[in-house]
Amino acid sequence: MRITILGAGGFLGRKLAARLAQDGQLNGRAVTGLTLFDLNVPPAPEAGFPIRRVPGDIADSAAVAEAIPPGTDIVFHLAAVVSAAAEADFDLGMRVNLQGTLALLDACRRLDRAPRVIFTSSVASFGGGQGAMVPDDGRQLPANSYGAQKAMGELLLQDASRKGFLDAVSIRLPTVIVRPGRPNKAASSFVSGIVREPLLGLETTCPVGPDFAIWACSPRRAVEWFLHAATMDTAPLGLDRGINPPGLSVTVGELLEALERVGGAEARARVIFTPDPTIEAIVSGWPAAFAATRARALGFTQQEGAEAVLEAFLADDLQATRAERATA
Amino acid sequence: MRITILGAGGFLGRKLAARLAQDGQLNGRAVTGLTLFDLNVPPAPEAGFPIRRVPGDIADSAAVAEAIPPGTDIVFHLAAVVSAAAEADFDLGMRVNLQGTLALLDACRRLDRAPRVIFTSSVASFGGGQGAMVPDDGRQLPANSYGAQKAMGELLLQDASRKGFLDAVSIRLPTVIVRPGRPNKAASSFVSGIVREPLLGLETTCPVGPDFAIWACSPRRAVEWFLHAATMDTAPLGLDRGINPPGLSVTVGELLEALERVGGAEARARVIFTPDPTIEAIVSGWPAAFAATRARALGFTQQEGAEAVLEAFLADDLQATRAERATA
Repeated sequence: MRITILGAGGFLGRKLAARLAQDGQLNGRAVTGLTLFDLNVPPAPEAGFPIRRVPGDIADSAAVAEAIPPGTDIVFHLAAVVSAAAEADFDLGMRVNLQGTLALLDACRRLDRAPRVIFTSSVASFGGGQGAMVPDDGRQLPANSYGAQKAMGELLLQDASRKGFLDAVSIRLPTVIVRPGRPNKAASSFVSGIVREPLLGLETTCPVGPDFAIWACSPRRAVEWFLHAATMDTAPLGLDRGINPPGLSVTVGELLEALERVGGAEARARVIFTPDPTIEAIVSGWPAAFAATRARALGFTQQEGAEAVLEAFLADDLQATRAERATA
Repeated sequence: MRITILGAGGFLGRKLAARLAQDGQLNGRAVTGLTLFDLNVPPAPEAGFPIRRVPGDIADSAAVAEAIPPGTDIVFHLAAVVSAAAEADFDLGMRVNLQGTLALLDACRRLDRAPRVIFTSSVASFGGGQGAMVPDDGRQLPANSYGAQKAMGELLLQDASRKGFLDAVSIRLPTVIVRPGRPNKAASSFVSGIVREPLLGLETTCPVGPDFAIWACSPRRAVEWFLHAATMDTAPLGLDRGINPPGLSVTVGELLEALERVGGAEARARVIFTPDPTIEAIVSGWPAAFAATRARALGFTQQEGAEAVLEAFLADDLQATRAERATA
């Protein structure tokens, strides 16, 4: 199987590449080549198959065609400008999130056979707020440019699948926790921050109250969903290529209880509640629960509980995050 | 008020331009200039205000900017490649229906103040089939490229409205009957054909049975909706800029009864039922009824019954259609 990862330099792209390198196969078929594409030359893991690294602009059709060579079986399209950046710079978001997906379609249409495309869409494409339980056929009425661009990408790939140009599965990722690295300007930054920072021994603030709920998944589970989407039978999807995967609806209070079990009372004591009405206004529009019935029936596995999420961070990312923070 | 019509050479664009020329004002404010834009130089009505005619490609940002000069208050965006053509030529549909709407957005962002944009979306952006009653917040899962491109345009304009770049109202037009002119290759062509052709004294075939239902509106009503959307208060719309207007759910049998009342038994006898499974397979996916509760509350007027639709065709379009057909 020849595989391409667009956005291979990002947090999830690196984890996915490492997993493919480690497994050497996908659903019993050997990986025979992997292309890693990102704006800068992405890091490559050690692997038992050849890895190409292609730097380029996702909105440049020629560059994307170079990253998706003849014979490509699977494309993971993770390249994106995230929510806060797409909101701050509309043109950048449109360029990367919409024109990038159009460039992907162009490249796929040049191939001899339609590749499977796994597209990372987002819960940010939905509204509804804290009280909502989003059904599988819930309408996407995004309150942010990132979500609008992702919903447009879904429509494009759904129609391109119907036309036989490619074979898409769009996974609407929950908020991924625990993100390694530093706090960023995303409104959702605190969700990872309130567990990551205390586990690093640092104080942090929480801008919302303990009852605030989010729809979350771990990086490990996101990668599992990508791999399942890469080889699943798409015939049962019909027209509808959008998947609301079975994430975890969890409150800030439950995350802090898990933090105490994993890191002790001293870790939990490092979280200071400091209400921030600006952040609360943004994040209160996000739905915190999805039915996800269809995804379960299609074989997407259930996100584990909060404690397992924190333990995965300790096992996978704490050391690297600590090292990165120490060198800056 | 300075007004632009994109797609001014089309069937509805010409009717809208004629109506603006006739009224000379919109909701009590004088029309001070009208720009008519289409691929070929569009026809211009006699009017008491200056009319510019701009030929150009809707996907060409410079041409569209020329058509939307500084000081433009209202843009009617009717330019589109219709369903059968967008299905037959994917690239053409993407170019006109998606890139054209992106060019519109570019042009609007150059203006000093955000113009009102009336976008003609379509019931083709919905699925669900004959049994469906589409609610106001129904999900758009289109089964055709035209509908997918229209739904993407809606997302784009909804987000651009939120950002303050423009102030959009997207009207999801029902099947417009009675279309003047000739039968075309659209799967829905028969819906107009079964009344237009008999009223012209010609035999025609109907590919579906008398119980087949459609969601329809007249050209007159569509123009009324455009004018209402052009001056309505958009604050109550909030994020949701998509309108399912109050059309008419009507069966083929009801249309033929109206035909008999308006044109006599001899007119009705000119319709021959000739089942066409290919056409039936396409059109059976279209929803035939919408709640349209929100649109009514927002002041969009109700489509009249089938007999009024046919009488409007007799009054407005029969003569011109007969003349056009005689010269070919």
